[in-house]
Amino acid sequence: MALITLTTDFGKKDHYVSTLKGAIYSLLPNTIIVDISHEISPFNIAETAYILKNAYQSFPKGSIHIVGVDTELTPTNKHIALLLDGHYFICPDNGITSMIASEIQPSKIVEINIHDRIENCRSELDVFVHVACHIARGGTLDVIGRPLANIKHLVELQPTLYDSKIVGSIIYVDNYGNAISNITKELFQEYGKGRPFKISAGRYTTHQILQKYSDIIDFNSEASIRKAPGSRLMLFNSNNFLEIAIYKSNPKTVGGASTLLGLNYREPVTIEFEQTPK
Amino acid sequence: MALITLTTDFGKKDHYVSTLKGAIYSLLPNTIIVDISHEISPFNIAETAYILKNAYQSFPKGSIHIVGVDTELTPTNKHIALLLDGHYFICPDNGITSMIASEIQPSKIVEINIHDRIENCRSELDVFVHVACHIARGGTLDVIGRPLANIKHLVELQPTLYDSKIVGSIIYVDNYGNAISNITKELFQEYGKGRPFKISAGRYTTHQILQKYSDIIDFNSEASIRKAPGSRLMLFNSNNFLEIAIYKSNPKTVGGASTLLGLNYREPVTIEFEQTPK
Amino acid sequence: MALITLTTDFGKKDHYVSTLKGAIYSLLPNTIIVDISHEISPFNIAETAYILKNAYQSFPKGSIHIVGVDTELTPTNKHIALLLDGHYFICPDNGITSMIASEIQPSKIVEINIHDRIENCRSELDVFVHVACHIARGGTLDVIGRPLANIKHLVELQPTLYDSKIVGSIIYVDNYGNAISNITKELFQEYGKGRPFKISAGRYTTHQILQKYSDIIDFNSEASIRKAPGSRLMLFNSNNFLEIAIYKSNPKTVGGASTLLGLNYREPVTIEFEQTPK
Repeated sequence: MALITLTTDFGKKDHYVSTLKGAIYSLLPNTIIVDISHEISPFNIAETAYILKNAYQSFPKGSIHIVGVDTELTPTNKHIALLLDGHYFICPDNGITSMIASEIQPSKIVEINIHDRIENCRSELDVFVHVACHIARGGTLDVIGRPLANIKHLVELQPTLYDSKIVGSIIYVDNYGNAISNITKELFQEYGKGRPFKISAGRYTTHQILQKYSDIIDFNSEASIRKAPGSRLMLFNSNNFLEIAIYKSNPKTVGGASTLLGLNYREPVTIEFEQTPK
Repeated sequence: MALITLTTDFGKKDHYVSTLKGAIYSLLPNTIIVDISHEISPFNIAETAYILKNAYQSFPKGSIHIVGVDTELTPTNKHIALLLDGHYFICPDNGITSMIASEIQPSKIVEINIHDRIENCRSELDVFVHVACHIARGGTLDVIGRPLANIKHLVELQPTLYDSKIVGSIIYVDNYGNAISNITKELFQEYGKGRPFKISAGRYTTHQILQKYSDIIDFNSEASIRKAPGSRLMLFNSNNFLEIAIYKSNPKTVGGASTLLGLNYREPVTIEFEQTPK
Repeated sequence: MALITLTTDFGKKDHYVSTLKGAIYSLLPNTIIVDISHEISPFNIAETAYILKNAYQSFPKGSIHIVGVDTELTPTNKHIALLLDGHYFICPDNGITSMIASEIQPSKIVEINIHDRIENCRSELDVFVHVACHIARGGTLDVIGRPLANIKHLVELQPTLYDSKIVGSIIYVDNYGNAISNITKELFQEYGKGRPFKISAGRYTTHQILQKYSDIIDFNSEASIRKAPGSRLMLFNSNNFLEIAIYKSNPKTVGGASTLLGLNYREPVTIEFEQTPK
């Protein structure tokens, strides 16, 4: 049974998402459809890439990912289908896929050219649905497009490396209000080489990166004097990005790290390592 | 495998939607359940009809659509099941189905009368679930209700036609803040007969209807001086309704057509055609 | 085909929910996954229990319920799996399950101890997914954990019984703004024994509990002078809890019972019964 995922900025109230699902089930009744997210900020390519990058790998190889963000076909926005890391992506060529896996080369890219062949085609997404179902039935990419040597490249916000300093930035704020930076555990370890460090992010400075959220709690102390929800902390999250968090925060009531520490999208996060004495 | 869709005003936080799904899977383990929308404004029949009208046609014929909006059984709100355009609808008789497809005559309508036959029936929706599963198993409508000659008719807001003028109104504001009117492409073409026109909607007046959103961009001009996101435009959308849009708008940040141009539900949209000289 | 439900505080925008689903489909392609709720207030155990308690029973026996709220493994927050009322629950041992079915004794409880056996384990939820798929394949609880005699007990807010008075409290506010109390129909009937009563909740006092919402309408009166949407009422809802409602309210526009009558979480609801003359 084929597995097709959907990532869009359609929201959940309108009929747009269900129209997409209806079209898929009409062509291919035996399909598993999984929503990755429909709450992408409208037309936000960086956010789409961030969410999809962190989600796709948990799906089985051979999964087909439809990306419905900024899909209108224009001279500068072609439709492409590609095979990357064993997964199929069907999306506009607006840089999203280059941001999903910058370090992995797609093993096949085509520019979709079947737009004129689809009956009753009402929107760009009908084309994506046809391509997805074609792949799901075992069809090859060559049948629905012409080979493309390259996709459009967009470079994500990248951390800058100075003498003994990494300057990254916040790339996402999650449901808990936690602020996630583009500094990975790998970069931190390679560049820091175990040296002592100081991290500054918004109104928060620390010398410590935790392994998990609850490491902020000292379970040996008496329950009554333990640090409580509301404590600030940094850790590498499950996707290995440096994250600034408030322990058990609720952004809808007391606020989360983003609002409480002033860490919006693109705010800088600076790690200064102690200089090795010469 | 039967396909059942759900359209409700239950929201996504409470247990109501999952209770419905659990009940369906308990009766019929092999079912595909698709959410059309659960974010209908509470008790809003016009909104329900708009969303369902635009969604149902993309599903395969034979699909079963449960409508969970304003379902409480009262002397003036019967429960009905009907076959319309090859699709089954199970819903209260409050005018929703008459608005879904005003031009199509249902081929069969019954008033559901099995309320007393359901064990452990906790709510109206349990009845709808039983009816849906009965149909999904191939059962006929006659078994679960008595034939009804007519359903309640509600007339949607309809455009008014004047001498050389169409006066429609906004019937829906979507996730992008785009304002959708009840003026269809068909009406525009039939009534306008190719004459020049002027359209006024809120604070926006135009003489042009585009084919697609990106037609607002002149791709022959240099990228640096091209019209940018934020431009106002009108087009017939994928459901053939006249839509007033802001190119690449985000209602949560800069605002969308509805807020920026003053186009809420029921606001008028006027098309004046040039009068043919006598 | 196994049925796995998900109840989390992940929200619907981030990649967290889809990562969970991808992981399940990777291990067990033939699974039905149903979202119970992903909009639990962050770390709110009482809310999780309320929603899950009302949802789980409608699912088929043998369903597997993953609870992803406050899951981080700590010395005081073990991971457990249990069989309760014919349903499997996989969750942290933070009191949630004791609140789901306080009157039903789990027939089996284990403390999950396979954390070290999972490859590429990125988060606690990977462990829950492995346990769920193990159970779905027909595996026993003993293989993935060691028997536990007891789970952590949390007592929900319980109504207090006075001389001729029940003092309960609001435990949940739903999508319609209706305020749901912890006073059940059973308690009311047992304790009241048919005596006349007065109920006070926030700014609303009544002597009447309706059978259904629309009982507030007198369908024998002329339509024009009938009570309209906006009327206040009390009834026992489909889960048999005393609920304070506004007929056909919309909390996003005119407000619901919670905001209009001052009935937030934990607000008291008092029923005074007439004292039997001695």
